[in-house]
Amino acid sequence: MEFLVHIEVEWPADGDPQELARLTAAERERAAQLAAEGRIRRLWRIPGRRENWGLWEAPDATALHESLMSLPFYPWLSIDVEPLAAHPSDPERPGGR
Amino acid sequence: MEFLVHIEVEWPADGDPQELARLTAAERERAAQLAAEGRIRRLWRIPGRRENWGLWEAPDATALHESLMSLPFYPWLSIDVEPLAAHPSDPERPGGR
Amino acid sequence: MEFLVHIEVEWPADGDPQELARLTAAERERAAQLAAEGRIRRLWRIPGRRENWGLWEAPDATALHESLMSLPFYPWLSIDVEPLAAHPSDPERPGGR
Amino acid sequence: MEFLVHIEVEWPADGDPQELARLTAAERERAAQLAAEGRIRRLWRIPGRRENWGLWEAPDATALHESLMSLPFYPWLSIDVEPLAAHPSDPERPGGR
Amino acid sequence: MEFLVHIEVEWPADGDPQELARLTAAERERAAQLAAEGRIRRLWRIPGRRENWGLWEAPDATALHESLMSLPFYPWLSIDVEPLAAHPSDPERPGGR
Amino acid sequence: MEFLVHIEVEWPADGDPQELARLTAAERERAAQLAAEGRIRRLWRIPGRRENWGLWEAPDATALHESLMSLPFYPWLSIDVEPLAAHPSDPERPGGR
Amino acid sequence: MEFLVHIEVEWPADGDPQELARLTAAERERAAQLAAEGRIRRLWRIPGRRENWGLWEAPDATALHESLMSLPFYPWLSIDVEPLAAHPSDPERPGGR
Amino acid sequence: MEFLVHIEVEWPADGDPQELARLTAAERERAAQLAAEGRIRRLWRIPGRRENWGLWEAPDATALHESLMSLPFYPWLSIDVEPLAAHPSDPERPGGR
Amino acid sequence: MEFLVHIEVEWPADGDPQELARLTAAERERAAQLAAEGRIRRLWRIPGRRENWGLWEAPDATALHESLMSLPFYPWLSIDVEPLAAHPSDPERPGGR
Amino acid sequence: MEFLVHIEVEWPADGDPQELARLTAAERERAAQLAAEGRIRRLWRIPGRRENWGLWEAPDATALHESLMSLPFYPWLSIDVEPLAAHPSDPERPGGR
Repeated sequence: MEFLVHIEVEWPADGDPQELARLTAAERERAAQLAAEGRIRRLWRIPGRRENWGLWEAPDATALHESLMSLPFYPWLSIDVEPLAAHPSDPERPGGR
Repeated sequence: MEFLVHIEVEWPADGDPQELARLTAAERERAAQLAAEGRIRRLWRIPGRRENWGLWEAPDATALHESLMSLPFYPWLSIDVEPLAAHPSDPERPGGR
Repeated sequence: MEFLVHIEVEWPADGDPQELARLTAAERERAAQLAAEGRIRRLWRIPGRRENWGLWEAPDATALHESLMSLPFYPWLSIDVEPLAAHPSDPERPGGR
Repeated sequence: MEFLVHIEVEWPADGDPQELARLTAAERERAAQLAAEGRIRRLWRIPGRRENWGLWEAPDATALHESLMSLPFYPWLSIDVEPLAAHPSDPERPGGR
Repeated sequence: MEFLVHIEVEWPADGDPQELARLTAAERERAAQLAAEGRIRRLWRIPGRRENWGLWEAPDATALHESLMSLPFYPWLSIDVEPLAAHPSDPERPGGR
Repeated sequence: MEFLVHIEVEWPADGDPQELARLTAAERERAAQLAAEGRIRRLWRIPGRRENWGLWEAPDATALHESLMSLPFYPWLSIDVEPLAAHPSDPERPGGR
Repeated sequence: MEFLVHIEVEWPADGDPQELARLTAAERERAAQLAAEGRIRRLWRIPGRRENWGLWEAPDATALHESLMSLPFYPWLSIDVEPLAAHPSDPERPGGR
Repeated sequence: MEFLVHIEVEWPADGDPQELARLTAAERERAAQLAAEGRIRRLWRIPGRRENWGLWEAPDATALHESLMSLPFYPWLSIDVEPLAAHPSDPERPGGR
Repeated sequence: MEFLVHIEVEWPADGDPQELARLTAAERERAAQLAAEGRIRRLWRIPGRRENWGLWEAPDATALHESLMSLPFYPWLSIDVEPLAAHPSDPERPGGR
Repeated sequence: MEFLVHIEVEWPADGDPQELARLTAAERERAAQLAAEGRIRRLWRIPGRRENWGLWEAPDATALHESLMSLPFYPWLSIDVEPLAAHPSDPERPGGR
């Protein structure tokens, strides 16, 4: 099942730059793993913001929650999850196939 | 350039069912053309709602506007467009490549 | 997978009372079928409003969407779906078991 | 009387991890007591968020308030309570019976 | 149990004046009955608006819902119900007594 | 003139417990004085929240503001005031009498 | 007591132009009377909108409500009333004097 | 003085196409006049929506209101006006010069 | 040109009382100067809140911005400015005269 | 492609004045470079607020994001980006030409 996931990083403006660099590197590594596992399908930056839109895939909301909690930035993230249903006109998976 | 597009169909509950059927068929055909042209990349239903999320691609906002206006349902649509920027961890087009 | 579903019935105040009675009876029958199929688990009225909260269960969002669309009142419904993840302290299905 | 309760845990991202672990354990214990007393009926995580939806039961809003205040995390909680009325199509307690 | 109830009358500006007069008279009579039964405790107009705030009392949300549905204007009402808990400093019923 | 007053106490979760206890006691005493003066007519807790609804009475908004500012918790309060007009069906003061 | 009043005229775009002209003339006459009685102190158009801000004065919210209801456009108005308290730095009535 | 103006055209989906064509042509002509008078400086479509953003210039809000009211679509427009102040880093009119 | 200005003072509840007293005195003095210069026409407290509504007058938004920035509390203020247009029924300046 | 960009500077009221002065000077210098590169076309202050509206131009959202991230104040900025499409009545670039 696919989910549209909106993530905002609430890192404080005066946060420690070294900790930020360490977390950013760890986040990138974890994202690569989640992509390799088929959890993250697409990822986009929202221009001008510390936010991203992602297309995630997971068997259900419980499995998705575990993947999201595994992100190194998790304590600083505000996450919104929207469940997606198949659309007959979807070019990639028409009708969910 | 990719755009995240949210479309709500504001068709009235007491609208003419035949006109609705005609428009739905025309919409499906036009969506297939837009998919073939590479304008529509993905399309999902929002469960329980007459709304969808779509991943669209166009050279700029002016070209996207023309594609959206070409939808047969256009007069009944409430559309929100969000510009997307490349993300270094995007599995499909890392860093926008 | 369980979903928390909020349904608002947007029946017009000056709608035909006979059609309303017919739809209400059909809705009740369809709800009983969905309950028998395990789709609807719980259902509550929101006091003073033509709205309800429901606990629904379905394999995924696509199946849930089909069940919601099968409601006789569907053209008049404004529906919000929230995906639910397992909670370790849930008395009935602890940790989703 | 049943209530739909939405709880958000506003624990700061840079909060003390040991205090967080201590409070989480105490919260789980208290939740088990409230479940045993019939106060908490169901509990779900909202995927990606430090929030949960719960189905609570109490004689009235005053008793519910006391139960909610007894949660160890209470000073960090933002809680929304919605009163629920019986629905004739509720599979478990049809018409509130 | 007491409830704070906000009612907005969504009567159309071009509605039939005679029907409005008939409903207003019926509403006033029904409100007097609900006051006599102890359901309506206080009622205030919100200045400039077709809305009122009311202090209602009922055993639970199900009974309150039935009282609200008995109002002649019910099909035109948008109603919000807030459950109230006892406050130790309430002059009239301190601590809910 | 009566006012419906909504008060939220924005005391920080990690605030000093002794200062909180001192302020709570002072607040209760001041509330009793305001009730004795006829300023506070009713007071309710909003279940699960550090908020209350109150029915206040004062000659005008300037006098009400002075009463509200006299609350010991005032620097931590977020207060919303709604003016109330007489309703012909109010059981206690019909038509404002 | 002074009130800040926001009025939106919800006249339909396809409303009868003659009725609109008749109501506009009647509204202007009634506004002049309310100004002469000291009810309306100031009145401003909100640029581009069928809305205005007004400074009104009345003994209390009940009297203000009656004045607002006397406007010929009343059935088409959406009105918001904010009570105003005296400010020590007000040039015209410092401290409410 | 410059103003940022947001205009939404609330033309009904089932409106008369001939009247729409007539108004669109008249609107285009009036916009050209307002541009020639220096009232409209820039104009952009919001992709997917019947809305535009405009940069307008007028001596004050009263003059701007008159220009906006002169638009043939005015009865169907929902307009938001934001006053703009000079910015020292504005490339075109640095510091408002 | 007149502006309706809403100011919220975001002074922290645990701010230094001496600094607050110093700023309050300076603010009052500056407000008197702005009133003498014809910038501030009226000023009201919003009951129960650290907010005020003000009627300001300035040649344009740039001049108004400079006056607002001259307030000693400026770094703690959240300010909303609404441009006002003349109303034909304004008792004090009918039609902006 | 043009973008309408809204920027809010979330600099804390008690922030270091010297750091603020240093950042403000650096920001002005960077803005001048972005204007020289054709990225920033127009810039306006929102009266009374630490916010601005800007007309930016960039090949796509990814390039715009890089320009916005290059602002010295970036960690303290809350930025909203709206894509703009050509309007046939735009005086400066009619139909996007």
